[in-house]
Amino acid sequence: MNQNLFKPRDPNFESRVRESFVAQSAMATLGFELARVEAGQVEIQFSHRDDLTQQHGFMHGGIIATAADNACGFSALTLMSSDKAVLSVEFKINFMAPARGDRFRAVARVVKSGATLTICNGEVLAINEEKETPVALVQATLISLDSKRAGIQN
Amino acid sequence: MNQNLFKPRDPNFESRVRESFVAQSAMATLGFELARVEAGQVEIQFSHRDDLTQQHGFMHGGIIATAADNACGFSALTLMSSDKAVLSVEFKINFMAPARGDRFRAVARVVKSGATLTICNGEVLAINEEKETPVALVQATLISLDSKRAGIQN
Amino acid sequence: MNQNLFKPRDPNFESRVRESFVAQSAMATLGFELARVEAGQVEIQFSHRDDLTQQHGFMHGGIIATAADNACGFSALTLMSSDKAVLSVEFKINFMAPARGDRFRAVARVVKSGATLTICNGEVLAINEEKETPVALVQATLISLDSKRAGIQN
Amino acid sequence: MNQNLFKPRDPNFESRVRESFVAQSAMATLGFELARVEAGQVEIQFSHRDDLTQQHGFMHGGIIATAADNACGFSALTLMSSDKAVLSVEFKINFMAPARGDRFRAVARVVKSGATLTICNGEVLAINEEKETPVALVQATLISLDSKRAGIQN
Repeated sequence: MNQNLFKPRDPNFESRVRESFVAQSAMATLGFELARVEAGQVEIQFSHRDDLTQQHGFMHGGIIATAADNACGFSALTLMSSDKAVLSVEFKINFMAPARGDRFRAVARVVKSGATLTICNGEVLAINEEKETPVALVQATLISLDSKRAGIQN
Repeated sequence: MNQNLFKPRDPNFESRVRESFVAQSAMATLGFELARVEAGQVEIQFSHRDDLTQQHGFMHGGIIATAADNACGFSALTLMSSDKAVLSVEFKINFMAPARGDRFRAVARVVKSGATLTICNGEVLAINEEKETPVALVQATLISLDSKRAGIQN
Repeated sequence: MNQNLFKPRDPNFESRVRESFVAQSAMATLGFELARVEAGQVEIQFSHRDDLTQQHGFMHGGIIATAADNACGFSALTLMSSDKAVLSVEFKINFMAPARGDRFRAVARVVKSGATLTICNGEVLAINEEKETPVALVQATLISLDSKRAGIQN
Repeated sequence: MNQNLFKPRDPNFESRVRESFVAQSAMATLGFELARVEAGQVEIQFSHRDDLTQQHGFMHGGIIATAADNACGFSALTLMSSDKAVLSVEFKINFMAPARGDRFRAVARVVKSGATLTICNGEVLAINEEKETPVALVQATLISLDSKRAGIQN
């Protein structure tokens, strides 16, 4: 799985990915930040918020899943040409520990970049002082669409 | 798959499920409402919000997944005894159409209720005037834990 | 999920699906039979075999998964036009009970038939005398390819 | 994900895992071999067989999934104590390329080893002369049961 060897089709992939991230209003609402954008890899960071928790006071699994899904989606987008948009076909996420942390990192990478479909995996880590704990593991399928069609249909 | 035949272990399951739902601060923050609670079935409803969208102006897939995950979790909880808590082990979600709607329904049901694990599936539907469109399909695994341990470990 | 309303693009879908099934040598090797082929629905049947078991003497989960995956794939194929081939993009399967039975049925149906991607779900049931027990639940994504390209790439 | 740091609870895990593998009649029938057994990691190898193919002459996805599922299951078992058995709760597999090869390797590793549940991921690689091609990516949930109960229920 030499995910570091991916060559981006669009040399300006980082600015394109960052624009797409900002265009998602949900990201600002949830306090997500796009920390790192590389060819085939993306990291999203966010902080614990009391208004996004489940019944035990930890971050809600759906919020963790949103970060994981988005990290996969934007990882896939880094390798697409500039006339393409990315949509999530599906993802599967395992929750490995309660999402108890001051801050969180969702890290994803492309495992296979195909003409139509991209396969990614990644993890979400909770940060407590010095220590990082994996809280979720994700595997996702993304599809590349013409930018003009992306809002119409999948 | 006679999911209608499930007998709840706790006759007061509805009030217990509704209390647990309210205890999740994320639900109020996202505008989710627990519309229907039956033995082995739960429905969550929510409205489109411009601050929870992706780059094409539709509801973000992560928000759709949060609703689907939670509908599965609370469906599982309806069949557990009163000293148990539910945690998501994992879920898998397919996105079938853009989440374009005025309002949404996430409907889930228990397929298998085991001593430790519960398997659920469900769908999220977008409502536009009279018409409903399926936008996501979910399959999930939940675990039953002693209420006292639920915040500690999975 | 009105899976019964699907209109096949190819009126001769059944013979096409049956030819494709026979062309899979693994089906004969594993003793799988294509019991039922309808527009958007397929059923595969097979018998317990002592040489396909896991360590407790029940049918191996991988064999159950093979039946579930194939039932999804051929369900998707029933709705494709005659110049298309189907490939599995991915599937997710939950095992709900030991695969203890004299005979088994894998039943799958199309939930969403898109231009490129098809989403299916289904279950595998163990048959013991009169009684049927669900042993697995599956959700799958299939892709439609030009027949000529299907052996080359996905 | 320091999967190399796992400490086995049973120092004799390798012989126990190898015995369990041999006890699965399906492994011999499919020609699977347990090539490598380490604490938290397992590799299964097998050869192309014309009687286990799909319609284009490549190894059937179900056979690939069987190898992936089993590699995950036995990886989980390496870290369990000697009175425990392992069962697959569920797995999700992405197919990344046609399973075209002379020989195949299914490699899996434990990502999280919990008291009850174990999370694994892995891949299946096709070997052609010198070259290896990833053909599938898997993520799985396993459950640890008392050996005496494992054949009864999950």
